[in-house]
Amino acid sequence: MSYIKRNFMLKNKTAEKLYFNYAKDMPIIDYHCHLPEKQILENKKFNDIFEIWLSGDHYKWRLMRNYGIDEEFITGNKSNKEKFITYCKVLGTAFGNPLYHWSQTELKEFFNCELEINEENAEQIWEHCNEYIRINNITPQSLIEKSNVTHVFTTNEIFDDLTTFSEIAKKDYKFKVIPAFRADKIMNIEAEKYNEFVDKLGDVKTLSELENKIEERLKEFIKVGCVAADVALQAVYPITEKADAEKVFIKRRKGESVSETESEIFKGYLTYFLFKLYAEYDIATELHVGAMRNNNAVMLEKLGLDTGYDSIAEDNSIKYMSRLFDRLSSENALPKTIVFNLNPKMNTEIMTLIGCFQSGEAKGKLQYGPAWWFLDNKVGMYKHLEDLTATGHIGAFIGMLTDSRSFLSYPRHHYFRRILCSYLGELIENGEMTADLELVGKVIKDICYNNAIKYFGV
Amino acid sequence: MSYIKRNFMLKNKTAEKLYFNYAKDMPIIDYHCHLPEKQILENKKFNDIFEIWLSGDHYKWRLMRNYGIDEEFITGNKSNKEKFITYCKVLGTAFGNPLYHWSQTELKEFFNCELEINEENAEQIWEHCNEYIRINNITPQSLIEKSNVTHVFTTNEIFDDLTTFSEIAKKDYKFKVIPAFRADKIMNIEAEKYNEFVDKLGDVKTLSELENKIEERLKEFIKVGCVAADVALQAVYPITEKADAEKVFIKRRKGESVSETESEIFKGYLTYFLFKLYAEYDIATELHVGAMRNNNAVMLEKLGLDTGYDSIAEDNSIKYMSRLFDRLSSENALPKTIVFNLNPKMNTEIMTLIGCFQSGEAKGKLQYGPAWWFLDNKVGMYKHLEDLTATGHIGAFIGMLTDSRSFLSYPRHHYFRRILCSYLGELIENGEMTADLELVGKVIKDICYNNAIKYFGV
Amino acid sequence: MSYIKRNFMLKNKTAEKLYFNYAKDMPIIDYHCHLPEKQILENKKFNDIFEIWLSGDHYKWRLMRNYGIDEEFITGNKSNKEKFITYCKVLGTAFGNPLYHWSQTELKEFFNCELEINEENAEQIWEHCNEYIRINNITPQSLIEKSNVTHVFTTNEIFDDLTTFSEIAKKDYKFKVIPAFRADKIMNIEAEKYNEFVDKLGDVKTLSELENKIEERLKEFIKVGCVAADVALQAVYPITEKADAEKVFIKRRKGESVSETESEIFKGYLTYFLFKLYAEYDIATELHVGAMRNNNAVMLEKLGLDTGYDSIAEDNSIKYMSRLFDRLSSENALPKTIVFNLNPKMNTEIMTLIGCFQSGEAKGKLQYGPAWWFLDNKVGMYKHLEDLTATGHIGAFIGMLTDSRSFLSYPRHHYFRRILCSYLGELIENGEMTADLELVGKVIKDICYNNAIKYFGV
Repeated sequence: MSYIKRNFMLKNKTAEKLYFNYAKDMPIIDYHCHLPEKQILENKKFNDIFEIWLSGDHYKWRLMRNYGIDEEFITGNKSNKEKFITYCKVLGTAFGNPLYHWSQTELKEFFNCELEINEENAEQIWEHCNEYIRINNITPQSLIEKSNVTHVFTTNEIFDDLTTFSEIAKKDYKFKVIPAFRADKIMNIEAEKYNEFVDKLGDVKTLSELENKIEERLKEFIKVGCVAADVALQAVYPITEKADAEKVFIKRRKGESVSETESEIFKGYLTYFLFKLYAEYDIATELHVGAMRNNNAVMLEKLGLDTGYDSIAEDNSIKYMSRLFDRLSSENALPKTIVFNLNPKMNTEIMTLIGCFQSGEAKGKLQYGPAWWFLDNKVGMYKHLEDLTATGHIGAFIGMLTDSRSFLSYPRHHYFRRILCSYLGELIENGEMTADLELVGKVIKDICYNNAIKYFGV
Repeated sequence: MSYIKRNFMLKNKTAEKLYFNYAKDMPIIDYHCHLPEKQILENKKFNDIFEIWLSGDHYKWRLMRNYGIDEEFITGNKSNKEKFITYCKVLGTAFGNPLYHWSQTELKEFFNCELEINEENAEQIWEHCNEYIRINNITPQSLIEKSNVTHVFTTNEIFDDLTTFSEIAKKDYKFKVIPAFRADKIMNIEAEKYNEFVDKLGDVKTLSELENKIEERLKEFIKVGCVAADVALQAVYPITEKADAEKVFIKRRKGESVSETESEIFKGYLTYFLFKLYAEYDIATELHVGAMRNNNAVMLEKLGLDTGYDSIAEDNSIKYMSRLFDRLSSENALPKTIVFNLNPKMNTEIMTLIGCFQSGEAKGKLQYGPAWWFLDNKVGMYKHLEDLTATGHIGAFIGMLTDSRSFLSYPRHHYFRRILCSYLGELIENGEMTADLELVGKVIKDICYNNAIKYFGV
Repeated sequence: MSYIKRNFMLKNKTAEKLYFNYAKDMPIIDYHCHLPEKQILENKKFNDIFEIWLSGDHYKWRLMRNYGIDEEFITGNKSNKEKFITYCKVLGTAFGNPLYHWSQTELKEFFNCELEINEENAEQIWEHCNEYIRINNITPQSLIEKSNVTHVFTTNEIFDDLTTFSEIAKKDYKFKVIPAFRADKIMNIEAEKYNEFVDKLGDVKTLSELENKIEERLKEFIKVGCVAADVALQAVYPITEKADAEKVFIKRRKGESVSETESEIFKGYLTYFLFKLYAEYDIATELHVGAMRNNNAVMLEKLGLDTGYDSIAEDNSIKYMSRLFDRLSSENALPKTIVFNLNPKMNTEIMTLIGCFQSGEAKGKLQYGPAWWFLDNKVGMYKHLEDLTATGHIGAFIGMLTDSRSFLSYPRHHYFRRILCSYLGELIENGEMTADLELVGKVIKDICYNNAIKYFGV
């Protein structure tokens, strides 16, 4: 029997009451993830625990690398079983790491396995899970349904084919699958393949043509239910003039490369354009800042993007974020915006900034997104809750997401919920807030689900 | 009955002993606030709870905006009662926010009301408090006296008329009211009204003339008891040559606008000048850094300054703060200085820096100011105490202030004192420090009151 | 009897079990300190408690300055006894400061004195300790041996004479003394004495000649056992071309001074060169970043370097750290590297960055160094452990060092061990990790000693 008990992460009796009476049974809206919609539609059975767990999860890969495991056992030529056994060995002593909790919880929730994950039990877990997968019908749809999910917001490139969403919409799944619109490939003008990406939109020579194409595509996304867009920037850049951005764009379209400064000129304008566009169509904008991507060129060459070589950026862009929001606000063109920030030292800067642009249009029109990616762990969540409650209003918060590529990641919503209930349960037992559990319970339900449903209007 | 009990914020029995035996009955010196001295002298009775509580408190306004309340219910045309009811509704679920504690405490301390603030009780609280105000003599003076305050340091512009202070000095109030000297309006050369402000000082053409006027005014302030000055900067700028600052000043006096660079040249010199001046007259300098002000131009236009649209700045000025202190120190012209920093990520940078400029002239000649403004909450105070004790000497600390515009804000001193006692009480019960409560109690009394009295020499 | 009990810093029973069964008796490898190897060899008896405790410890000096003690009682002309008494008085109320714990622990461990340090007991402690020193044989070697130390890595300048190490190696001490190679004096080209330092290496005209000399000296260090090098930078600078660095070097060698920009050009190249060199010789590189040194020019002039006038830097160099590691990695020339970072706000930036350059070459090839210098305290250590476990793998961690100039500082290893055991003990009792104490104990032993031994290959 593993250390995961019924009261896991619930510090006291009040926390338990809050979780079991209010949080546990709320459905899930996962408003930002990277699940592949095609796999949901195809709904193929998984073959073994390695395929579900380790084949594409760069969080797990990083942990193994941190422990000094050779790449052969991670993304290399070793067998699935050898890789799995190695992961179990590494995980067995990764005390305090979120994967240590996630993996153990996933085993319990999805494979009915309560063996503690470590070197000693690895072989037995491998056998148990694969047998379980053989007997049971473990598919993307079954995992989503079992997790009580009602909405999945996938992340889709601006030029992605959307027919899968139409097909899914015709089915009678218990959940909806909706694309979020992501124009980053059109934003990142310095990228080698930039022109290829733009070409996918058709014949685009001028910046105005690009803008038209972006709007056209957004309309297509909206037709299949899109209510949210992603914007990922290492930092927010100063807003620039369209004419200056145009020059950079034309230059790049000729196949020339652009300098870091030119790239920022282009992004400064395009960010502003996108926010205005999203405001016009009432698209909630999910702004991701604070990641420094692809630090390791050798491994980028070998394994590609999103394989565990990103880190937290030093991001000094709060001044420009202020100016962006201010300009949009003065033009009545500031969309609902969720700021996901990866650098915890900037929590309160951003939280207090967005407090300057709230309005009666929505409960928490500007949101400070939950503890995310490298912060999606106990420490990150407590800091997020402490900072959020101290500088904002917890009752307006739209809660958790997974940001995940894995169909097994929904227990992270419950991990967050347990921590939320524990945080409030402690305040209650310390006499720092009301003991009216009905009132508190309502807020918890709102944070778990209702606020997000209202916020996105789905 | 609300959740606020006798042992509110006091984690254990030792904390209770420390608070009730040593902290609770100490008087208050509020060495930085924004109370209007005229209102103290006039001493008018308040009309209703809205007037005292909500009419001018941008902290409360921000909280309502964060929850998505329409501005009509905040600073708009809704009735006082509607606004009050709305605030109670919003506050009822603002768990963890400092206002959640402050408001509940203020009701109890000043209106003898123990109803829990929420939507359900709002009407009843409205009635209760207004009845209480009708019956009792609630005035600025009565609130200050009830709070056991001995000194109030108001914040006054360099050109403010000081006769009110002379008049107050003639009265036999139980407390003193003393102006702190603030030359920011003369510093912020980029401001639209800059020349108007300078003109208030008389005929000023050159920078030397400005310097003379500043010194003259400081002498006037000192005549009415002034012992402290405020300097508020988003960041500390490099020290510049007087001749260069003069050029910028002359240009601005001609009515021309100045660039951001020119503005920083001017401020770099003037900051240096002011610190030297304050050292000469033994004026304690309260340096405020880390705020990014007036982020929302639309609302600035509508509501003016200090209405809830400031935020925490990204401030990379530690290098220049070091050089400023070093230069002043080498010229034997470093005044007693209290650094108030709004960005918690800079706590230890500044704390360790000021540790490089201490001397035998005063116990804690350079002070790291208490958790302030956006940090004036449990999280901010604990972080402040942890960082301060780890890198400095808690026994030299001059303690809390309100920085408030409200006559009801003195319970925040007790909020701080409870947290201080709780922090120490926990260390004691954990066996991490002496259990000699007399010794600890003396330090607590010093932090609550005695250190500040000695530091300012009042 | 002082407040230091058997279970000091151990929060619960499990923590006690972990400390006493696994951590307490592990030997110590102190892989970075500033002990003078000559004093170890000479092994002179100390004369009094002042000499051991206060004569050279700038941590203690800072604390006294923070409390407003006159320099006469710190580094000035007052008697040893007066200084000692003053320190005891100041320390008596320095609750929460690490010195408060360290000093009390050192009295107990090395002088068998359990009197609580404060003004009242100061005289008695002075008598007790000096009597103890008179009777017992308190020498550098006895202190190291008593502390169960097996390896001491001193810090030596590139031009230091190494004969003392050869002599020590011939003795049958129970511990090894090994120099770490430090080329900072050759790096800091802006320093007044730069050319003097370079001259110590012999006739050096070109940068290539300098490189050769550095390599020659490194080989000499390796002959006496060196396995580690120190690199201290306020920030990591961009990698530059050798030709550009050469120009700066030639200019400086002519006796001209160099600008800040030129200095960074030189350092950018030389850092890159040194890391490559260390990789070639498999030297573990201890990179120290985040300190702003010598803030107070007056006191630098009076007392010299390392006298308590350094602080935590604002350091925005994560981008360049990424590029340095990436370049080295792509050239297969990234050595084992330990990043010691003094600014806690950068913890997770650096931790996630080094996670991008791990490999199968070593368990934790890139290490995030322990809470160090200003962070060597309870708050700093908890934050370090929380951040490390959340973003990395605790099982790969090589643990604590002293960074100290004092022979009494080894209890800090135990201070860290108690906090480590307390941290894990709490997770265990909270049900957040395995209760298999044998497994946990093995990890603790690894962190205390075994990992570092393997990492450095000693």
